[in-house]
Amino acid sequence: MATHMTPEQFRRYGYQAVDWIADYWSRLPSLPVTASLEPGQIAARLPAGPTEHGEPVEAILADLSTVVTEGLTHWQHPGFFGYFPANTSGPSVLGDLLCAGLGVQGMLWATSPACTEVETVVLDWLADLLDLPAAYRSAGTGGGVIQDSASSATLVATLAALHRASGGRWREAGVDRRYTVYTSTQGHSSIEKAARIAGLGNGAVRQIEVDPATLAMRPDALAAALRADVAAGAVPALIVATIGTTSTTAIDPVPELGALARQHGLWLHVDAAYAGAAAVCPELRWTHAGVELADSYCFDPHKWLLTGFDCDAFYVADRAGLIEALSILPEYLRNAATEAGAVLDYRDWQVSLGRRFRALKLWLVLRWYGVQGLREHIRRGVRLAAELATAVAADERFEVVTPHPFGLVCFRLRGAGGGEAADPPNEELLRRVNATGRIFLTHTRVTSADGTGRYVLRLAIGAPQTTDEHVRAAWKLIQEQATSVLAE
Amino acid sequence: MATHMTPEQFRRYGYQAVDWIADYWSRLPSLPVTASLEPGQIAARLPAGPTEHGEPVEAILADLSTVVTEGLTHWQHPGFFGYFPANTSGPSVLGDLLCAGLGVQGMLWATSPACTEVETVVLDWLADLLDLPAAYRSAGTGGGVIQDSASSATLVATLAALHRASGGRWREAGVDRRYTVYTSTQGHSSIEKAARIAGLGNGAVRQIEVDPATLAMRPDALAAALRADVAAGAVPALIVATIGTTSTTAIDPVPELGALARQHGLWLHVDAAYAGAAAVCPELRWTHAGVELADSYCFDPHKWLLTGFDCDAFYVADRAGLIEALSILPEYLRNAATEAGAVLDYRDWQVSLGRRFRALKLWLVLRWYGVQGLREHIRRGVRLAAELATAVAADERFEVVTPHPFGLVCFRLRGAGGGEAADPPNEELLRRVNATGRIFLTHTRVTSADGTGRYVLRLAIGAPQTTDEHVRAAWKLIQEQATSVLAE
Repeated sequence: MATHMTPEQFRRYGYQAVDWIADYWSRLPSLPVTASLEPGQIAARLPAGPTEHGEPVEAILADLSTVVTEGLTHWQHPGFFGYFPANTSGPSVLGDLLCAGLGVQGMLWATSPACTEVETVVLDWLADLLDLPAAYRSAGTGGGVIQDSASSATLVATLAALHRASGGRWREAGVDRRYTVYTSTQGHSSIEKAARIAGLGNGAVRQIEVDPATLAMRPDALAAALRADVAAGAVPALIVATIGTTSTTAIDPVPELGALARQHGLWLHVDAAYAGAAAVCPELRWTHAGVELADSYCFDPHKWLLTGFDCDAFYVADRAGLIEALSILPEYLRNAATEAGAVLDYRDWQVSLGRRFRALKLWLVLRWYGVQGLREHIRRGVRLAAELATAVAADERFEVVTPHPFGLVCFRLRGAGGGEAADPPNEELLRRVNATGRIFLTHTRVTSADGTGRYVLRLAIGAPQTTDEHVRAAWKLIQEQATSVLAE
Repeated sequence: MATHMTPEQFRRYGYQAVDWIADYWSRLPSLPVTASLEPGQIAARLPAGPTEHGEPVEAILADLSTVVTEGLTHWQHPGFFGYFPANTSGPSVLGDLLCAGLGVQGMLWATSPACTEVETVVLDWLADLLDLPAAYRSAGTGGGVIQDSASSATLVATLAALHRASGGRWREAGVDRRYTVYTSTQGHSSIEKAARIAGLGNGAVRQIEVDPATLAMRPDALAAALRADVAAGAVPALIVATIGTTSTTAIDPVPELGALARQHGLWLHVDAAYAGAAAVCPELRWTHAGVELADSYCFDPHKWLLTGFDCDAFYVADRAGLIEALSILPEYLRNAATEAGAVLDYRDWQVSLGRRFRALKLWLVLRWYGVQGLREHIRRGVRLAAELATAVAADERFEVVTPHPFGLVCFRLRGAGGGEAADPPNEELLRRVNATGRIFLTHTRVTSADGTGRYVLRLAIGAPQTTDEHVRAAWKLIQEQATSVLAE
């Protein structure tokens, strides 16, 4: 072979790949959600290496259909209820395809102007859709940018916070004081990881107590921690509040945390990775009270807003501070537009230099669905979760463990002993439910008022293919397996 | 609209998008390489927002064809010679398409086993192709992983180096000593950025002098800097050597730098972002002498190996050290496979938690082209660069400024005054050449033995569509414009 694929060959093989995906989506409901295999089984079935002279696309697609697909957990399966949804959709896939075909680099405005300008415009649209603060718009003092994930958004927020807390010394001098970071015990692991990456160490992260009923951060506990740290000579730099924690979708009291941030001059970052998408619905915007106090905010359209990974929407209220923290300009990137200060160069808003045209997929999703289409998607997830929670509560063997404002329901078997004594049956229930291959759930641990950590099942609804019928069937399956577990 | 795109709708629109790309690639040669427009011009032509009920794909593709495409720099254009190439290819685009369609998350082995196993296998193939050290293979002590870019690879290497230099304290205590990082004056800006992100500050980066003829790092200067820093109480942690610098593709003396790294117990990271691809050709492997001394190594298939951004191949010799530096395991990600230690969880090899199935595009590229196809691609770039350099040297108005072992030629007009006095005509030459819209070049500054920084034109060859004819036409155009500049 040894030659480049011509446009006409690409047309032919492109149709085949599109067909492959359409067929995959059509047969998804008939596949087991998860693969049941041992480590190394897939690797052992792959070729030993590339051939000397290349292979036809048909041979590669054949391996994809057999070997690779058999080794996947199907995140787009209607019975996938694990973790959080990782939505994709037809328009998003088209956007990724077009992005790949264009193959442009958007590191600077000058390296492909439309790549930057479409991103700015689409993130402004998204800020409108979520009714985010005016400061987050490009016409204001801040703006939005696509990060690969909320982990990167948290890291970037941490760096901007350190720049501010150091009065600008951090760029040159590094971490020269005992900076501290605050989140709740329920904050995402990426907050600790960002602190570690930023050179603060895990020891700099204060995991603030939560209200045992809501699992939301306690402002009084935060205030006490801030006082204690300042008294001990530490330098508080950042508060990370969460709207929709990963474990249970708890909502921190952002208005109170924002007031503390202002009082102490700290950077407030709001991590709404999963739940931010809910704010497209006016009736769910109560969950976003206080975001106008945040210096930065992020959510993942790649979780619950029908846009394939990677697409985290990250907003700052003061873009100048962020850019100052992250910019470096080597000679080979100097250009007139940058020096005139008339453009946004997104490489100064992120860790990496290079960036692709990820805004295209968001652009396609927002335009295909329209405002009402996006709202319907979110509303269906919230409604199905509410209906499931009602069904769980109506079965006296079960309890709903936490509030369920979004698409996640956390529940467990009460078990004979209650409390921690009920963990083994719940672990067994999860194992058996997942072993059916018909649905896939994950778990978490929730600490109750008495301090015991209870094993809890998580059922997250949000895949585009998931219908009322799938959720009802899932609950029926869980009930049946529970009957069998409890009979032993 | 307000409804999800069905598989059958996706099939229809997918064909349209494939056609759009095939047509775009076909008409690329007829488009101007760069857009000529003012900041904000594209944004002003986009819709004010998404509609209430959605739009058909045809309307969105129409905007793509007119507004968006007119605002792009076409990185896949045969006349694109700027920066470094950002190759993509038909098989790579198919891989990205299939990755988007599958929509799986590979953060853990358990979250989609084939996503991890294909990546491990493909990175082993790539290590074979480049003849990288045995320690970088998954069967050895290390292994490979895909990062989004070489910037992220450098950051991850910096973190692993700090973990080692601190004897493991860094995870908990953060940056608690004056750690220092060494690279040459020609090292990439991402090295300074990584040091800043890691909390060391720009001040911790020592930019070591280079040999003025080769622009390669001087080992004696590095040794002196290490001695001076240690004497002053600093703690050297990391050396970043470059194979193929961004400015001029200079090659640092890795064997000597590696010996110094061993002697001082420092982490050696080799950044071969652009030039690593050359090692698929046995006759170019001399450029990789000494890589067996490196603790980590990276190169970008998304630059010169026909795989679309983002795809950086990052290797470590000791995966245990890397994983220890970056791992965090919250309850909701606990699973049997991870706890058994039988699998690789790639989230512990990178900054972010989430990751998509990027290995697919690399898998398609390696299998479609085969070993010889990849070599032919590299060899053509190297040959064309050599031929261009010969032509430049034969025109007495010009000089070739640096060696050109790969696909980049650095050259300039000698100008009347020589030295810095010749900068303005070279700047004017670049401006006029790019203004034709027929080709696109960028520039750099090269410091000569007398300490003056000279403005130099860079012409990087490597796009799949670029043929002998395009390079000859480019050189003719440059000569014509030079005649016009020099006549004034």
